[in-house]
Amino acid sequence: MNFFFEPSGVAVVGATPETYSGGRYLVTNLTLGYQGPIYPVNPKYHEVLGLKCYPSVVEIEGPLDLALIFVPAQAVPQVLKDCVAKGVRGAILQSSGFAEAGPDGKALQDQCLTIAQQGGLRIWGPNCMGLIDTSKRHVFSFIAPEAWQEAMNPGGVSLIVQSGLLSAGFITTLMSNKTLGLAKVCSIGNRSDVEESELLEYLLQDRATKVIALYLESFIHGRRFYELALSSEKPIVVLKGGKTSLGAEASASHTASLAGNNELIWGVLGQASVHQADDFFEMVDIARTLEKDFPLQVPPKGKGRIAILSYSGAAGIVTTDHLVANGLTLARLSPQTLERLEKLSPAWMPVKNPSVVNEPRKPILFWLIGHRKGREETRMTLEKEGWPTFDEIHRTVKVMASLFDQGKKRKKDLEISTIQFSFPQSLRKMMDQADKRGVQLLDEYEAKKWFKTIGLNVVKEMTAKNLDETLKAAEKMGYPVVLKGRVEGKVHKTEAGLVKSNLWTKKQLRAAYEEMSSFYPKPPSFLIQPMLKGSLELIVGVVRDPQFGPAVMLGLGGIHADIYRDVIFRLPPLTETDAVEMVSSLRGEAVSSLRGEALLRGYRGTKPVNMKSLSDWLIKLGWLVLTSEKIQEIDVNPLLIVDGEPIAVDATIILRSHLQP
Amino acid sequence: MNFFFEPSGVAVVGATPETYSGGRYLVTNLTLGYQGPIYPVNPKYHEVLGLKCYPSVVEIEGPLDLALIFVPAQAVPQVLKDCVAKGVRGAILQSSGFAEAGPDGKALQDQCLTIAQQGGLRIWGPNCMGLIDTSKRHVFSFIAPEAWQEAMNPGGVSLIVQSGLLSAGFITTLMSNKTLGLAKVCSIGNRSDVEESELLEYLLQDRATKVIALYLESFIHGRRFYELALSSEKPIVVLKGGKTSLGAEASASHTASLAGNNELIWGVLGQASVHQADDFFEMVDIARTLEKDFPLQVPPKGKGRIAILSYSGAAGIVTTDHLVANGLTLARLSPQTLERLEKLSPAWMPVKNPSVVNEPRKPILFWLIGHRKGREETRMTLEKEGWPTFDEIHRTVKVMASLFDQGKKRKKDLEISTIQFSFPQSLRKMMDQADKRGVQLLDEYEAKKWFKTIGLNVVKEMTAKNLDETLKAAEKMGYPVVLKGRVEGKVHKTEAGLVKSNLWTKKQLRAAYEEMSSFYPKPPSFLIQPMLKGSLELIVGVVRDPQFGPAVMLGLGGIHADIYRDVIFRLPPLTETDAVEMVSSLRGEAVSSLRGEALLRGYRGTKPVNMKSLSDWLIKLGWLVLTSEKIQEIDVNPLLIVDGEPIAVDATIILRSHLQP
Repeated sequence: MNFFFEPSGVAVVGATPETYSGGRYLVTNLTLGYQGPIYPVNPKYHEVLGLKCYPSVVEIEGPLDLALIFVPAQAVPQVLKDCVAKGVRGAILQSSGFAEAGPDGKALQDQCLTIAQQGGLRIWGPNCMGLIDTSKRHVFSFIAPEAWQEAMNPGGVSLIVQSGLLSAGFITTLMSNKTLGLAKVCSIGNRSDVEESELLEYLLQDRATKVIALYLESFIHGRRFYELALSSEKPIVVLKGGKTSLGAEASASHTASLAGNNELIWGVLGQASVHQADDFFEMVDIARTLEKDFPLQVPPKGKGRIAILSYSGAAGIVTTDHLVANGLTLARLSPQTLERLEKLSPAWMPVKNPSVVNEPRKPILFWLIGHRKGREETRMTLEKEGWPTFDEIHRTVKVMASLFDQGKKRKKDLEISTIQFSFPQSLRKMMDQADKRGVQLLDEYEAKKWFKTIGLNVVKEMTAKNLDETLKAAEKMGYPVVLKGRVEGKVHKTEAGLVKSNLWTKKQLRAAYEEMSSFYPKPPSFLIQPMLKGSLELIVGVVRDPQFGPAVMLGLGGIHADIYRDVIFRLPPLTETDAVEMVSSLRGEAVSSLRGEALLRGYRGTKPVNMKSLSDWLIKLGWLVLTSEKIQEIDVNPLLIVDGEPIAVDATIILRSHLQP
Repeated sequence: MNFFFEPSGVAVVGATPETYSGGRYLVTNLTLGYQGPIYPVNPKYHEVLGLKCYPSVVEIEGPLDLALIFVPAQAVPQVLKDCVAKGVRGAILQSSGFAEAGPDGKALQDQCLTIAQQGGLRIWGPNCMGLIDTSKRHVFSFIAPEAWQEAMNPGGVSLIVQSGLLSAGFITTLMSNKTLGLAKVCSIGNRSDVEESELLEYLLQDRATKVIALYLESFIHGRRFYELALSSEKPIVVLKGGKTSLGAEASASHTASLAGNNELIWGVLGQASVHQADDFFEMVDIARTLEKDFPLQVPPKGKGRIAILSYSGAAGIVTTDHLVANGLTLARLSPQTLERLEKLSPAWMPVKNPSVVNEPRKPILFWLIGHRKGREETRMTLEKEGWPTFDEIHRTVKVMASLFDQGKKRKKDLEISTIQFSFPQSLRKMMDQADKRGVQLLDEYEAKKWFKTIGLNVVKEMTAKNLDETLKAAEKMGYPVVLKGRVEGKVHKTEAGLVKSNLWTKKQLRAAYEEMSSFYPKPPSFLIQPMLKGSLELIVGVVRDPQFGPAVMLGLGGIHADIYRDVIFRLPPLTETDAVEMVSSLRGEAVSSLRGEALLRGYRGTKPVNMKSLSDWLIKLGWLVLTSEKIQEIDVNPLLIVDGEPIAVDATIILRSHLQP
């Protein structure tokens, strides 16, 4: 990666002396900061801006690590061949007209990638704005020189942005605001080769970078990104574009990359303690405040406690509303603190929280109002002293919340290594059998047999082939019972009429059996289960995400699960702490901790959920999918909570048939 | 009201020549704009700023409508007496130290109010910043002259703000931003007499005012505010402070006024098509954009359709995410439009939505990025031409959504007059009986009798006094049944063990009966009901809100109701359109229209809810509470949906015993 940021020799292919052109800006920007040799390349000129211009890359003499390429897309493959011939190490393709432009462009991009990979050349882009390193004043980008020359303000925030034009207009705005100190800016475009994870890894090692903020529409190597973020000591902030299906559609047309399952991404980023922003300046406001590295006392239990100092009661009230909405609360002030405040406060302003001053070591975020001129002076004074300032209450509070989130970040890698899990021989055998039979789908009976081998609790059940066996089973089990008809390949048994619940008598059971037997084809066998009454229905499962790989899901079940879609994802391996976090990340829990009691601490006289057992489900299903390539998907629905214990009542396992054993 | 805004003669009680003092600013501000006679009042001076100063209000000669009072709180009662003696019509009390300062201050405030009311004097405040009328340059406030003198920008937005200092700092910010045109600003403080509804009514008649924005922590006359907003042709925007219990606590300490039930207020404001903001500048951004009065084509069904014009794909994607989150969608562009856009768009930017230009008559909102200087010039050019500009995408989209909401505003007063509802004689009789018996609480049996008289559907049930009658009733009704024990005053029957469901046999029923009979006291009578299986549990009810009076509630029932608190309030009388709106305002519906199908159009093979029947419940309960002073609260829980029909299974009515018939 380093040859992109600190190259020995840079060629500008498409250099031109024409005013207002990217090819000229690229050369100008190099001359304004880069100390190594600069080689303009363009067969039309002998000289560009006082520098010798070469007809092609192969003609260049002297050291040459990096080529900045800004020629029409069709001309790029030949340029890359020249770069390979010359031994160039990296090329930043700032031209557009590739994958983002349609299938022809995609083919051209693939062709470029092949040339590069065969020649040992790394590609950055195409369809990007290149990079900026403020400390060295390296601007390897066609951004206009006047946009950065005066305004560049070195600092600790690095940006990785999957966007071209926005990064320029956006960076220009940020620089002119003078409140953000930048380290490195990477505009990575179509990411045909260099992508966000590799750059993230580079920036995590970069001394100048203290915080990394990313705008991404998808993750090329999601699992790798997750692992880097999980182990990172530096705060990471992500704005994920293309959250909604409409947004994702626009996204696909823009960078030709797939936007992922938003609920899964939200869960995974939370798991890795990545800060999530909803808008561009919100992303930057979080990053520039985290850069200050305030020492923050996070209460071991409960919410982050904030004091508000304001002469305006209304501002205090609205701030409190936003604090609560962001999971924070007001600090209770000691009598001593109140007394000291009384001395500072005018007589007409009674001291109460909202209304407080803190020790200066603690983070103090300023919301400024007043006349523009005075406000700007105050802002710049505060910012110079290292105190972040904001224009709106909602943003001030959101950023405050991110400080607390950062304070809660825990090192998970150690915990994970302590998890023990081994496959029992009996499960291996069942897996092999399923494989030999070539089945793609295991029904609830078989799925639950798998779960039992790893110590997970499933509903008691008996099988029957005919009415006689059915009635005997029910007698033995005790009424009321549930009767289920097993038909190969039928997963949605309820919709198919293959589930009859609430059977309290022999007569009712017989009627149910006879109805199912009248179906064509008649179910070859039946399941008899006791009619369980749970206090809560959950859904747990695992999926394989195209970006992030194996993922574990927990959700609230029943009809309302479909209405509220209250689900949370995490990547395995999971710890018990992860499992508790999953429960507390369910919206039903997050809406109010009081309501969360429904799940964790029992509800209306029901027993609390046994968290150890629930964790077991999540951890073990995670291990199953992580260690068994064969498993595509597991769905346990419902996982019923009976007297506090989770019990699998219905389940499906989908296998990946196309894999060889 | 008009004597506050256009008084003949203004006295400043507490006038002083001392620099940096409110008493000086008040006089200065008057001299800078007000054309009538100005009378400084202060026994210490003969002259203030070149004007004759009077020792007291009674000494003033000449016309005198209004007194601006800025003296210590303790001195205010005597000043008010002087004002009454002089025949002053209005007093703006800008001093603090009243209800906001504690019980003593509250007593002082009450004393002032009594003096004023007995003397026919209206009071504005106390603890307020007074008022500004930009068109006349009337600044009846102790705001510093330099804060407004140069910056004042007349326009169509009027503000009513229940806050003192904030309104000054805030107004100063707004004026210096130069993007908001103000008509009148009213800082109303403790609202001991003049309150937001009376001012709202005044501003609805005010020619200069096109949009009214309010910051409020509570509503003094909620129902009146609602009715004014409902019939208003002018857009109204509200920022309600004190949404959360913590915020409400801070609120109570600030203005000594009760913050209301936030869910109820949210519903009521929505019903009256009031725009709701979450932060101060959001409130202003919505108001200043609505002021432009863009002619907007709102699609009769479906979502507001937006076109995005941007050179940045990322900006388009993030904007789309925010559009969807705000209930909007992307427009589909015609081939002709796309063709015209191709001509405007550079070759490297493929035309798709996001990326469009519109007819200039349509609202165009601009999100600006780039270098501060150029951005400010562009902003001012656009704003001068009447195009609103914004700094962030989320705000731009939120404001766009408010334009569509405004476009959807319908006149409801006409519809309401067409509703027919009359009390049947049988219900009148039952009400009288309950009154004579002096009961405060009707249990489900009695409540459902009331409902039946007005044609509402309740569960079939039979009463029994002993085991024999119980068994006979069940036999007649058919198993399975539910057995409920009736004990006077017991509302929470389930928790008390007085409900036994799922009784399928005589044996089970007998056991249930015997268990309940072992309770002390033994239930004197029993209810036998069929065991209904519903597709959905709803809650409907009515309450009397201290601020808004009678209100109707609809919610999703069952365990998840407690977890998600998915409820919606509306004020009666209701129309069928209101009822449909209530259903579609439930969060389960709002999260995704697809999930909303669960309620309106049936779900997993269940029948759709009969909306006519559900509307009937909401409309009739609304009429009941509106026309019967006796009813304090009705709670129907659950209202079960069986084969699409709502059926009351359990209910309670609470009566107001303290009222005379």
